[in-house]
Amino acid sequence: MSSRPGAKSLPILAVLGAGDASDKEILVAEQVGATAARAGWVVLTGGGPGVMEAACRGAVEAGGLTIGILPNAKAGDGYPNPWVMIPVFTGAGSARNAFNVLSANLCVAVGGGTGTLSEIALALKNGTPVWCWASWSLTPPRGRETPTPRVFEEADDLIEALDAALNHQQAI
Amino acid sequence: MSSRPGAKSLPILAVLGAGDASDKEILVAEQVGATAARAGWVVLTGGGPGVMEAACRGAVEAGGLTIGILPNAKAGDGYPNPWVMIPVFTGAGSARNAFNVLSANLCVAVGGGTGTLSEIALALKNGTPVWCWASWSLTPPRGRETPTPRVFEEADDLIEALDAALNHQQAI
Amino acid sequence: MSSRPGAKSLPILAVLGAGDASDKEILVAEQVGATAARAGWVVLTGGGPGVMEAACRGAVEAGGLTIGILPNAKAGDGYPNPWVMIPVFTGAGSARNAFNVLSANLCVAVGGGTGTLSEIALALKNGTPVWCWASWSLTPPRGRETPTPRVFEEADDLIEALDAALNHQQAI
Amino acid sequence: MSSRPGAKSLPILAVLGAGDASDKEILVAEQVGATAARAGWVVLTGGGPGVMEAACRGAVEAGGLTIGILPNAKAGDGYPNPWVMIPVFTGAGSARNAFNVLSANLCVAVGGGTGTLSEIALALKNGTPVWCWASWSLTPPRGRETPTPRVFEEADDLIEALDAALNHQQAI
Repeated sequence: MSSRPGAKSLPILAVLGAGDASDKEILVAEQVGATAARAGWVVLTGGGPGVMEAACRGAVEAGGLTIGILPNAKAGDGYPNPWVMIPVFTGAGSARNAFNVLSANLCVAVGGGTGTLSEIALALKNGTPVWCWASWSLTPPRGRETPTPRVFEEADDLIEALDAALNHQQAI
Repeated sequence: MSSRPGAKSLPILAVLGAGDASDKEILVAEQVGATAARAGWVVLTGGGPGVMEAACRGAVEAGGLTIGILPNAKAGDGYPNPWVMIPVFTGAGSARNAFNVLSANLCVAVGGGTGTLSEIALALKNGTPVWCWASWSLTPPRGRETPTPRVFEEADDLIEALDAALNHQQAI
Repeated sequence: MSSRPGAKSLPILAVLGAGDASDKEILVAEQVGATAARAGWVVLTGGGPGVMEAACRGAVEAGGLTIGILPNAKAGDGYPNPWVMIPVFTGAGSARNAFNVLSANLCVAVGGGTGTLSEIALALKNGTPVWCWASWSLTPPRGRETPTPRVFEEADDLIEALDAALNHQQAI
Repeated sequence: MSSRPGAKSLPILAVLGAGDASDKEILVAEQVGATAARAGWVVLTGGGPGVMEAACRGAVEAGGLTIGILPNAKAGDGYPNPWVMIPVFTGAGSARNAFNVLSANLCVAVGGGTGTLSEIALALKNGTPVWCWASWSLTPPRGRETPTPRVFEEADDLIEALDAALNHQQAI
């Protein structure tokens, strides 16, 4: 009997990446989504095509729950992708990039364009851990201390570390 | 076999109301949340106390899923309430009121202060249907045609109509 | 000689109203903008057509400064109107309604549709004074105390009171 | 005589940088603000301390106009700084970073932390030109084409190029 009643808040993995993605990025994003779903994590993305869609598809096919934080106010242009189960329409454009990362317990960037770069930056600013594979390489201004993403050279290492962390065998 | 693969997008009921609510409002909000949950709808709120919390609690206790679109960037001041299963932090303050109503298939306002009034207005602007009980009474400027909420005088009628509509026995 | 150096922060009047407006609304909005400009106030609007455009035109022709907080990310659909001197693009859709009223020292609503109603509500929530002419008539839920707008029946009374208040002959 | 009446829309320079800044960054930001003001450009910043404040001060002392797009809903924590003439309160937190860059004709980043990085990214995404001095060094993922900032090694070169561009002697 808990002393504080309430529901179990679900842990959230945000998958960041571009709407136009390479075959390899799609494959990795799908594995990231599936790994999260199997660990009982909700997969949150910007709700669009490419990496976002692949992560959602991987999660749904593994029995998970997906949420998309959409830049648009009504469905269109591939937002939401068909694998988003809970579409959150914001109509806020790129401002919604800030919301994606605030809500996540962990962000994983798979490749990515300038939108993904903004999300990596906002996640670091917020103190949300960010894991990157095949994504941006960043060097802060000389003399400035900033948090940095954890960079994976190999996709297999990313998936393995993710599996270990989400199943609590290892700290994030 | 569907020609277009994808996940089932979940229908969303937004429950609008104040953080400080009367006993009767709490009771009605709880019933609204439970009714939605039993029909398989996700319950979305602003994620705070009062009516928002009651709707979430009703939904969770009926086995449903709850999502909170939070004005803050980090947990605090009763946001999220303990019955929010998926907390979406926006850090966007009152601007998040716009997101609450864009994402809903139907909005139900239970009482409400000025924040709720803004959500009713934004829902009407967006074309999202709004049902009201014990909420604001609105008269548009003379000569202006606007959509209007559906007003219920009795809470029982609201719950009955909601039950019928969410279970597809009646159009929204 | 001030002990704290800095610039003079300019007082801001937000003019709220619909993109489609009657001839009388246009005329009144223009007078509101001109009155503000002559008192040295910046005129802030949502940057679109109708009442917003009329208020900006009145201000510019009276030698004032106008700023538009735009829902779009790039110019289009009458946003910004030609009388906006400083266009602030947000791409945030209706969420920008919250920003309009947070930045104003006083809001004046001239007529208005559902978007205007949301701004009136958000201004009241924020504690920003709201003056209304020919706008929404609002009755809060029974038993709820909320701030209310100051309602003017006659346009001439609005302009006269505005002139007195902005020139510090009378409190807002 | 123009066939389309209206006001002159003012060109906007956004200055991006950290709230905690080095002496050299402060000096350069001040020069950037002054250069913009002398060319008749509005200086837009996030409205806070450090680089943002220095750019505003430089602009005001050169007779210019400054606008601050603030993350907060009410004044506090150094937002707005004393040199902001038009404070636009958003209450939108880091989401306001998106608005800063959408509204600018040119962005200049002076040093910068993770917030600045997000603004550089969002500016590039939007197609707004970005000039950087002593700021982030960015390498996109292998195989991805993205717009890039124009990087200045020396502050004097930045100021000289800015002066030439804003006075239309050279394209941005």
